[in-house]
Amino acid sequence: MGKIVTFGEIMLRLKSPGHERFFQSPVLEATFGGGEANVAVGLSRLGMQAVFFTAVPDNPIGDHCIEHVRMHGVDTSSILRTGNRLGTYYLEAGANQRPSVVVYDRADSSVSNLRVGDVDWNKVFETADWFHITGITPAISASAAEVSIEAVKKAKEIGLKVSCDLNFRGKLWKYGKSAPEVMSEMIKYVDVAIANEEDCQKSLGVELDVEIEKASLGIDKYKTLTEKVLSMYPNLEMIAVTMRESHSADHNTWSAVLNDRKSFVVSQKYEITDIVDRVGGGDSFAASLIYGLNHYGNEDALRFAVAGSCLKHSIPGDLPLFSLKEIEGLLKSGGSGRVQR
Amino acid sequence: MGKIVTFGEIMLRLKSPGHERFFQSPVLEATFGGGEANVAVGLSRLGMQAVFFTAVPDNPIGDHCIEHVRMHGVDTSSILRTGNRLGTYYLEAGANQRPSVVVYDRADSSVSNLRVGDVDWNKVFETADWFHITGITPAISASAAEVSIEAVKKAKEIGLKVSCDLNFRGKLWKYGKSAPEVMSEMIKYVDVAIANEEDCQKSLGVELDVEIEKASLGIDKYKTLTEKVLSMYPNLEMIAVTMRESHSADHNTWSAVLNDRKSFVVSQKYEITDIVDRVGGGDSFAASLIYGLNHYGNEDALRFAVAGSCLKHSIPGDLPLFSLKEIEGLLKSGGSGRVQR
Amino acid sequence: MGKIVTFGEIMLRLKSPGHERFFQSPVLEATFGGGEANVAVGLSRLGMQAVFFTAVPDNPIGDHCIEHVRMHGVDTSSILRTGNRLGTYYLEAGANQRPSVVVYDRADSSVSNLRVGDVDWNKVFETADWFHITGITPAISASAAEVSIEAVKKAKEIGLKVSCDLNFRGKLWKYGKSAPEVMSEMIKYVDVAIANEEDCQKSLGVELDVEIEKASLGIDKYKTLTEKVLSMYPNLEMIAVTMRESHSADHNTWSAVLNDRKSFVVSQKYEITDIVDRVGGGDSFAASLIYGLNHYGNEDALRFAVAGSCLKHSIPGDLPLFSLKEIEGLLKSGGSGRVQR
Amino acid sequence: MGKIVTFGEIMLRLKSPGHERFFQSPVLEATFGGGEANVAVGLSRLGMQAVFFTAVPDNPIGDHCIEHVRMHGVDTSSILRTGNRLGTYYLEAGANQRPSVVVYDRADSSVSNLRVGDVDWNKVFETADWFHITGITPAISASAAEVSIEAVKKAKEIGLKVSCDLNFRGKLWKYGKSAPEVMSEMIKYVDVAIANEEDCQKSLGVELDVEIEKASLGIDKYKTLTEKVLSMYPNLEMIAVTMRESHSADHNTWSAVLNDRKSFVVSQKYEITDIVDRVGGGDSFAASLIYGLNHYGNEDALRFAVAGSCLKHSIPGDLPLFSLKEIEGLLKSGGSGRVQR
Amino acid sequence: MGKIVTFGEIMLRLKSPGHERFFQSPVLEATFGGGEANVAVGLSRLGMQAVFFTAVPDNPIGDHCIEHVRMHGVDTSSILRTGNRLGTYYLEAGANQRPSVVVYDRADSSVSNLRVGDVDWNKVFETADWFHITGITPAISASAAEVSIEAVKKAKEIGLKVSCDLNFRGKLWKYGKSAPEVMSEMIKYVDVAIANEEDCQKSLGVELDVEIEKASLGIDKYKTLTEKVLSMYPNLEMIAVTMRESHSADHNTWSAVLNDRKSFVVSQKYEITDIVDRVGGGDSFAASLIYGLNHYGNEDALRFAVAGSCLKHSIPGDLPLFSLKEIEGLLKSGGSGRVQR
Amino acid sequence: MGKIVTFGEIMLRLKSPGHERFFQSPVLEATFGGGEANVAVGLSRLGMQAVFFTAVPDNPIGDHCIEHVRMHGVDTSSILRTGNRLGTYYLEAGANQRPSVVVYDRADSSVSNLRVGDVDWNKVFETADWFHITGITPAISASAAEVSIEAVKKAKEIGLKVSCDLNFRGKLWKYGKSAPEVMSEMIKYVDVAIANEEDCQKSLGVELDVEIEKASLGIDKYKTLTEKVLSMYPNLEMIAVTMRESHSADHNTWSAVLNDRKSFVVSQKYEITDIVDRVGGGDSFAASLIYGLNHYGNEDALRFAVAGSCLKHSIPGDLPLFSLKEIEGLLKSGGSGRVQR
Repeated sequence: MGKIVTFGEIMLRLKSPGHERFFQSPVLEATFGGGEANVAVGLSRLGMQAVFFTAVPDNPIGDHCIEHVRMHGVDTSSILRTGNRLGTYYLEAGANQRPSVVVYDRADSSVSNLRVGDVDWNKVFETADWFHITGITPAISASAAEVSIEAVKKAKEIGLKVSCDLNFRGKLWKYGKSAPEVMSEMIKYVDVAIANEEDCQKSLGVELDVEIEKASLGIDKYKTLTEKVLSMYPNLEMIAVTMRESHSADHNTWSAVLNDRKSFVVSQKYEITDIVDRVGGGDSFAASLIYGLNHYGNEDALRFAVAGSCLKHSIPGDLPLFSLKEIEGLLKSGGSGRVQR
Repeated sequence: MGKIVTFGEIMLRLKSPGHERFFQSPVLEATFGGGEANVAVGLSRLGMQAVFFTAVPDNPIGDHCIEHVRMHGVDTSSILRTGNRLGTYYLEAGANQRPSVVVYDRADSSVSNLRVGDVDWNKVFETADWFHITGITPAISASAAEVSIEAVKKAKEIGLKVSCDLNFRGKLWKYGKSAPEVMSEMIKYVDVAIANEEDCQKSLGVELDVEIEKASLGIDKYKTLTEKVLSMYPNLEMIAVTMRESHSADHNTWSAVLNDRKSFVVSQKYEITDIVDRVGGGDSFAASLIYGLNHYGNEDALRFAVAGSCLKHSIPGDLPLFSLKEIEGLLKSGGSGRVQR
Repeated sequence: MGKIVTFGEIMLRLKSPGHERFFQSPVLEATFGGGEANVAVGLSRLGMQAVFFTAVPDNPIGDHCIEHVRMHGVDTSSILRTGNRLGTYYLEAGANQRPSVVVYDRADSSVSNLRVGDVDWNKVFETADWFHITGITPAISASAAEVSIEAVKKAKEIGLKVSCDLNFRGKLWKYGKSAPEVMSEMIKYVDVAIANEEDCQKSLGVELDVEIEKASLGIDKYKTLTEKVLSMYPNLEMIAVTMRESHSADHNTWSAVLNDRKSFVVSQKYEITDIVDRVGGGDSFAASLIYGLNHYGNEDALRFAVAGSCLKHSIPGDLPLFSLKEIEGLLKSGGSGRVQR
Repeated sequence: MGKIVTFGEIMLRLKSPGHERFFQSPVLEATFGGGEANVAVGLSRLGMQAVFFTAVPDNPIGDHCIEHVRMHGVDTSSILRTGNRLGTYYLEAGANQRPSVVVYDRADSSVSNLRVGDVDWNKVFETADWFHITGITPAISASAAEVSIEAVKKAKEIGLKVSCDLNFRGKLWKYGKSAPEVMSEMIKYVDVAIANEEDCQKSLGVELDVEIEKASLGIDKYKTLTEKVLSMYPNLEMIAVTMRESHSADHNTWSAVLNDRKSFVVSQKYEITDIVDRVGGGDSFAASLIYGLNHYGNEDALRFAVAGSCLKHSIPGDLPLFSLKEIEGLLKSGGSGRVQR
Repeated sequence: MGKIVTFGEIMLRLKSPGHERFFQSPVLEATFGGGEANVAVGLSRLGMQAVFFTAVPDNPIGDHCIEHVRMHGVDTSSILRTGNRLGTYYLEAGANQRPSVVVYDRADSSVSNLRVGDVDWNKVFETADWFHITGITPAISASAAEVSIEAVKKAKEIGLKVSCDLNFRGKLWKYGKSAPEVMSEMIKYVDVAIANEEDCQKSLGVELDVEIEKASLGIDKYKTLTEKVLSMYPNLEMIAVTMRESHSADHNTWSAVLNDRKSFVVSQKYEITDIVDRVGGGDSFAASLIYGLNHYGNEDALRFAVAGSCLKHSIPGDLPLFSLKEIEGLLKSGGSGRVQR
Repeated sequence: MGKIVTFGEIMLRLKSPGHERFFQSPVLEATFGGGEANVAVGLSRLGMQAVFFTAVPDNPIGDHCIEHVRMHGVDTSSILRTGNRLGTYYLEAGANQRPSVVVYDRADSSVSNLRVGDVDWNKVFETADWFHITGITPAISASAAEVSIEAVKKAKEIGLKVSCDLNFRGKLWKYGKSAPEVMSEMIKYVDVAIANEEDCQKSLGVELDVEIEKASLGIDKYKTLTEKVLSMYPNLEMIAVTMRESHSADHNTWSAVLNDRKSFVVSQKYEITDIVDRVGGGDSFAASLIYGLNHYGNEDALRFAVAGSCLKHSIPGDLPLFSLKEIEGLLKSGGSGRVQR
C-alpha cells in the first residue's frame, strides 16, 4: 500500500464549551481541523502513510497547528510556512431543534493566498500513489481554486489516483465564480468522487427534481443521482454518497451508497441518537473509504467507511480519533456499546 | 412598539457542573436569573425595549448581577440598591429518572424586604406601555406580595397592559398566606395570564377533576381549564397555558394553548429529546409570547412563543439567549438541527 | 439493623473528561471507586452502618482515597496501610455505537499482595452481621483469591450473612486459575448471590444454550438460569440477576429478577435513554438490594434495588450518590424527572 | 490526650477562580470553611480527636457541608440540623496592591438563629477536655452571642480548658452590641487567648498608643499589649498574638509571641513571598497551637504553631490541609522548598 | 462632567491558560479588549459617561463583543456593523525571564477596512466633550490612519478636547508609512498626549541619546523628553509619560511623570512583584488620567492615574475592572493588600 | 550535525491543579515526561534530530504517550510496545516554605521489566552519533540497570559520544544495589557527565566535606568536586554541574559550572523569583548543553544550557517547550521579560 497525500486548508477551530452559546463562558476550546487534514489524520491512524500538505503562517499558531497533525503520525514535512494568518472557524454545538452554528473567519489565510507556481508538486507527491482533495479549497479564493486545479492535473499527470470530496460550502464561494463553474473543471481529473446529495446538486449543478433540504431521499433517487453524475463525468471511476437524516441536532441516521458503474451498493444504516460532534463526519467517511478501497472490495470498503464515520459522531473535535480495531469491532458487534472489562 | 417593564427577584444561580451532584467538584457554575429578569432579557434580545426593575444589595454581588442583565441591552437604571443580600438558588441538573433539584436560599433577600411605598412606580413605568410580573414575587414574603399588588394596580391605573405568569412555587409561600388568597386578588389587574396546568390549579385554586402530576392531559381538559379561568376573571383578555409532557429529565414534549375568548388555539408540539437546561423554559415562553402579541396575531404569537421556548431548552442557564432569526428559523425549518456552513 | 462489612480493592479512577478520548485534554478526572467500596458507600448513604475493609499504600494517594470513602460516613478505621501502590483504572466514556473503554492498571497493588494471615478478620468483623464480597477480588491475584476465601469462611464461621456479587472481569483472571475454579469454591460460603447473565456463565461455568453477548434474553431463560445456580449451590438462599439490554452506550434498559427458592420475582423495567455513567450500576444494585433485604420483603427489596441502581445511571462517578428519599421518590413517581420547586 | 470540641459557624465559601474579580468567569470555587471548623479539621489532621459542633440547615447544602468536614476525620455526629440557610461568604483573592475582598452573606443563617437552650452541651462536651471558640460567633447575632457565653460557662463548669481566638470582624457586630461589651464578658471563661494586635484592641477595647493598621509593631509594644490583657483578665493562663506584616497581598511576614505570665516568648519569623491563600491562616495557628500546648512546652508549641500556620499560606481554601510530618519538616529544614524525590 | 468618546479597534483576545504555552491545553481564554475600548470601560466604571465607537462584523462574534463592552455601562449604540472579521490577538503570559508573547491576527479586520466618509462623526460625537484615540488605529492600515486623522480633525473642529495615547506597536505599521510620518500629523490635533519613553521616540521620532530598551531612565531624561515633545507640538496642553522598570515578566515598577508646561510632576512609584496581567496597563493609566483631569488638579490626576493603573496589573484580562473606591483606597493605604472583613 | 538517541522511562505525570494539594479537586493534570524523553523533546525543538527509545505497554495509554513525544518531532519509531504498565508519578506543586511532593508509582513498569537482550541496540543506534542516558533508569530495577549498562557499552563500542545525567533519586534504588555500586560502573562508558552536587555525592559516592542539603556551596568547592570526579573517571571528557540555591519553592537561583579538564567555567546566574514548574529543569539543562556542545565552544555551550534551563522554570510540565530563538533572546536581553508587540 502506498502513500497518500491530502491538500487543503487546516484551521484553528474555536468552539464554545459543551452546549454553551458563544462567550457564555470566557473560554473557547481550541483545536485544529479541516477536511483534508482530517482525512490525513484518519488514514494515518488506520495505519497508512499519509502526507498532509498545506500552507500555514510562520508564527507560533502555525507551529502548534503542525504539531497537532504530526502527533497522529502524519508526514508534515512538506508544509509551506507562508502568509499572514491561519484560517479560523468558530463553532457552537447545537442541541435538539437548535442547529450548530459555524462562523468562518478565513479571510486572508495562508492557503487563500497561495498562487499557481508556489508549490513544488513533484516534491509534495514524491513516492505517493493517491491524492485527496475537496471542494472546500477551490471555494476559498480564486487563486486557491487555480492551485487546486493545478494540483489535480499534476497528480493525474504523474499517475496518482485522485479522490475528491465535493463538500459544498455555501458560506464560501464569495470571490466571483460559482461552485459548478470551478468544480465541473476540477472533477475531470478525479477518479473517486465523494459527496452528499447537496454537494452533488450545489457543487456540480446536477439537477434532481427533489427538495434537497429535506431529511431523507428515497434510495432510488440516490441511484439516479449517482448515475447522472457518472454519466456527466466519464473519467469518474466511482462515486460514494453519504446519507444523513437529521431528526435533530442530536439525532441523525447515517448510511451511504456507492456506484462504481458495475453495481450500486447500499450500506448498513446507523441510528445515532446522542451525537457528540458531527463536524468531520464526512471527512472520516472519506478517510475510511480510501482505507477501505485500498484494503477491501468496494462493497466492504463502503461498509467500513460508514462504520468509521458513524464512530466519528461520538468523538469530540474535527479529527477521526478512532482505530482500525474499533471500526472492525463496530462492524462485528453492531454497536451495542457494552463496556469491555 | 413600546417599552416593557418587568419586576421581580433576580437571583444568583449556583449550579453543579454538568450532571454532577452538588459538590462532587468544588465548583459551582454561577450565573444570574429569575423569571422576570429572564423575560426582560428575552424581550431585549428580540429587539424590544425592556426595563428590568428589582432591588439588589449595594455590594459587588449586586453590581455584577446588574452587569449581567445590562449586557443584553436591558435598561437597569431604575434598579434599587438596598437590602442585605441577593436571593440565591442552587441547582442540580437531573438526568433520566433523576429529577433536577432546586434548593432556594432566598430568605432575607433585598426583594423580600421591599415594602409598599419604597418604589416610585411612576418613574419605573415612565414611557412604558406593558408591565410583566409573575406569581413568584408575591410568594416570597408578605411585603413582597403587597408590593406586587401595588405594582399591578398602579400599572392598570396609568394604562399599561399587564401580563402575569402565574408560576406556582410550592417551596415558597411560607409566610402565612396561601397562593390563591393572594393571586386571586392580583389577577384582577391582569390582562394576559400565562400558566401551566399546575399553576392554574395551585395558584388560582381552579378545581379540575384531573390528576395534575400526570405527564399529559387531554386537550379538551385544557379547553375547559382556560374557559374556567376566563369566566372567573372577566378582566382577563386571554390566557395561554403551556403543556409539558415529562417523559424523563432529558425528554419532554412542549406545546401550548391560548384562549382569547374568541378562539381556542392549539400550538405545534415539539419533541425535545436531549434537554440541555429546562429552567427558564416558561420564562422564555412568556417573553416570546409578549413579543408575538406585539408583532403578530394571537395564533402566530402562540406559535412563536412555543418555538422560542422550545429553543430555550437547548441553552444552558436561565436566560433565553436566542435571537429573532433563530426563532423564525425554527418556525420555518421545523427543527432538523442541520449545520449551516 | 446491624453493621455490614465489605472487602475488596478500591482504585483510583482516571477518566477523560466528558466524551473525550484519552488525553484529548491534558486532564483526567480523578476519583476513587471499586465494587466493594461502592457498596459500602451506598449502604452508608442509605442509613446503615457500613465498614469498608481494604489495603492501601501508606502514601498521600492512599490517605486521600480513605478520606473520600470516609466522607460518606463509612467506617474506614480497619483499613490496612501496606503495599506499593493503589490499583488504578482508566476510563473513557463511550457514546452511541462507541463502547466505553476500561484500561486496568492494577498490577502489584496493595490488595493484590495481601496474603492469608495478614488480616485480623475477628477485628474487621467485630459487631458486624453481614459481609459482602465480589468476584473481582479473587480475580486479581492468587493470594487475593486465597484471602477472599479465607474471608468468606471466617464470616460464615462467626455467623455473618454473606453476599457476593459474582462480577466476572475478563481482563483480570491472569494468574493461572480460571474464574469457575475459584468462584465455585467461594460461593459455597455465600447466602445471597448477585450476578448478571454473563457472570453466571463465566464466573460459575453455568452452561446455558443462549448467546450471552446478545442484548436480551427471555425471562424464562433467566428463570432457568437462576434455578440452575440454586440447584448447584444448595447453600445459596437466593440469587438476584440484573438484566441490561444495551441499545447503545447511552441507552440501556435495566431490570432484574430474584429467585429465593420460594418464588421467582421479576422487577419493573426502566428505559434509561441518556446514561450519565453506568460504571458502578451493578454495585448500586447490590447496595440497594442489601438495604432492601434488611428492611423489606424480598420482592420489595428487588424493586428497591432496581430503582436505586436505575438512579445510579444518572450520577457521574463510581459511587452511588443517592439518598433513601430519592429511591423512594422514584418508586412512587415512576421517574418522569419533573423539577420540584 | 483528650478530645477537643470546637463550636461556631461553618460557611459555604464561594471564591472567584485564581486572581479573577467576581464573575469574570461564570464560576465560583465552592468549598466550606469557618474559623472553628478549620481548627477542628487541623486538629484531626494532626492526629487528635476533634469534634465540630454547629447548626446547619436540613437540606443538601447542609448535608454536603458535613461530609466535607467528616472526610478529615472530625466527629460531626452532634451537629444540629436546623434553620433556614448555611451562612455564605464570597471571596476574591487580592494580588499585589489589590486587597482580597470578602463579602459576607450570613444573614438568617442556622447559627445566627440558635438560641440559649437549643443545645445539649452535656452531650456535645461528652468525654472532651478542651473547648475552642472564637470571637466570630458572638458577632453574628444577639442570640448567637448568648449561646456562645452559655457554651464557655458550661465548658468551664464541667472542667474543660477553654481557648478563644478573639478574631475581630468589623463587617459583623451589627446587632446592637459592640465587640468589647460581649467579648469582655466571654473572655472571663477563657484560659488560652489567641489574637492579633487588632483583635486585642477592637475586641477587648485594650488601648495602645500605636496605629494598628500599620504593617508592623515593635516587639516591645507586643509585650506591653499581652501584659495589659493578662492583667485585665486574671483568669487567662496565657495569650498568644500573631504578627503579620503585610507588604502586599502576596507578600507577608508571619510570626507570633506568647505570654504565659512566666515568660514572654518570640517565635521565629517566616518571609512568605508568594501567598497562595491567607484565609484561615489564623485558624491554622490556633489549631497548631492547641496541638502544641497538648504535646510540647509552651515555647515549642508557639514555634510549632507559627510553622503550621506559615504552611497554611501555601494551601488553597480555608482548611489547614497539612500533616504533622510537614510541620515538623518545616521546623527542621527552615523552608527551602526543595523537591524530595 | 461631560461625555467621552473613544474610537479604535476592539479585538478578540485569545490567551492560553495560566502560564501555559499556546495549545498546551486545547483551550484559549476568550475575552475582548483593545486600547480604546479599555479606556471607555475604565471611564464608565469610574462613573463617567463613555461612548465606544468602532466597527465590528455583523456576526455572532461581533454581537458578543458589543455585549461585553455594554455590560460595563459603556454606550455602544453608535458602533458600525460592517466588514469581514473582528481583529484577534493571541497572548501567552510570560513568567520570570520568559516574556509574554503577543501574536496579532488583525489582517482584514472591520476597522482596518474603514474608509474616510464611512463614519458620521457628528452623530458619534453628539453631546460629547472629550475624544480619546491612540496610536494603534493609524498603525493598522492606510485607510484606518486616514479615518483616525479625520476623527481628530472633526473633534477639534467641533470643540472637543482630544487625548491620544501614542502606543507604538512595532508589529503593526506594515502598510508603507512609518509611525512618525502619520503620528506627527495626527498629534497636531491633540491636547493631551500620553506615552511611554518608547512611544515618544518610535511614534514621534523624538531623538534622545539614551538606550530605550533599558529598564530605567533617569527622571531628568524624562523631563528633557517631555519638554522636547511639548516644544515640537505647541498645540499640546500636556504630556504624561509612564515609566515601567521591567525586572522580570512578574516584577515591574510603575510610575509616571506629567509636564503641563507649567510644572513637571513625578508620581509615586509602585513595586509590583507578582503581576497578574500587564496587558491593558497603559490603557488603565489613560482612563484614570482622563478621569483625574476631569475631577482633580493635574498633580492629583497623575497620582490617581498611576494608582489606577497599578491596580490593573492585579486584574486578569485587558479591561480595567476596578472601581473609584478601590483606587481611592490604594491612594490612602499605600497598598499593603490587607484583607478587609 | 548527527542524530541523538536518548533512552529511559517516560511516565504519565499526574499533577494536582495549580497549588492544590492532591484531590482538593477531583482532577489531575495528565501529561507525560521523564528525564530522557524530556531531553529528546528539547533537542528536537532546538532543531536537532532526536530519537527517543523506551518501552511502553501496548494499550491506549502507551499509544497516547508516544503521540505526545512524536508531536515535538522526536523519532519514536523504535519504541518497544511491551510490559504491563506505564510508570506514573504524582506531583503536587509546592509554594513558599511547602516543598513539592513527588509520589512515584513505577513498580512493574514496562521499562523496569526490560531485560538484557530485549533491545536491538544496533537498530536503535542506527545513524546516530550521540547517546544520552541518566542515572534514573539504573535506579528502577536490577534488570533496568543491566540494560542501561548494556546500552552505554554498546554505544561506546560503535563509536557514539555518551552523555549521562547522574540524576540521583533517593526514592528509587530499592532493588538491593546502591547507586554508587551501579553508577561507578556505568560512568566508565560516559564522555560527558551532568550532575548537581547531590548527584555527585550520592550517585558516585564522591565525598566532600560540605553539607549537601544547604542552599549554596562556594564556587571553589564546586571546582574541587568536579576535579575529584574527573580524576576518578579518566574516561570523562568533561563534567557540568548545575547549582540551584533554593530560597523557597517559588524562588531559586540557577547557574552551572563546567570542567573540561582544560578550564573550569562558571556560568551567568539567574534569579528566578516566580517559578512556574521546576520539574524537568535539569533535563532542559542537559538538552541545551548537548545542543550547545554540538554548536558552540564549551563556555558558550554552558551559557546556552543555563539560559535554556532558566527558561524551563517558567513553563508548566516536564517538557522543555522552548525554541532556539527564545534561548538566544534571553542570552541577549538578560531576561527583563518585556512584552514584544
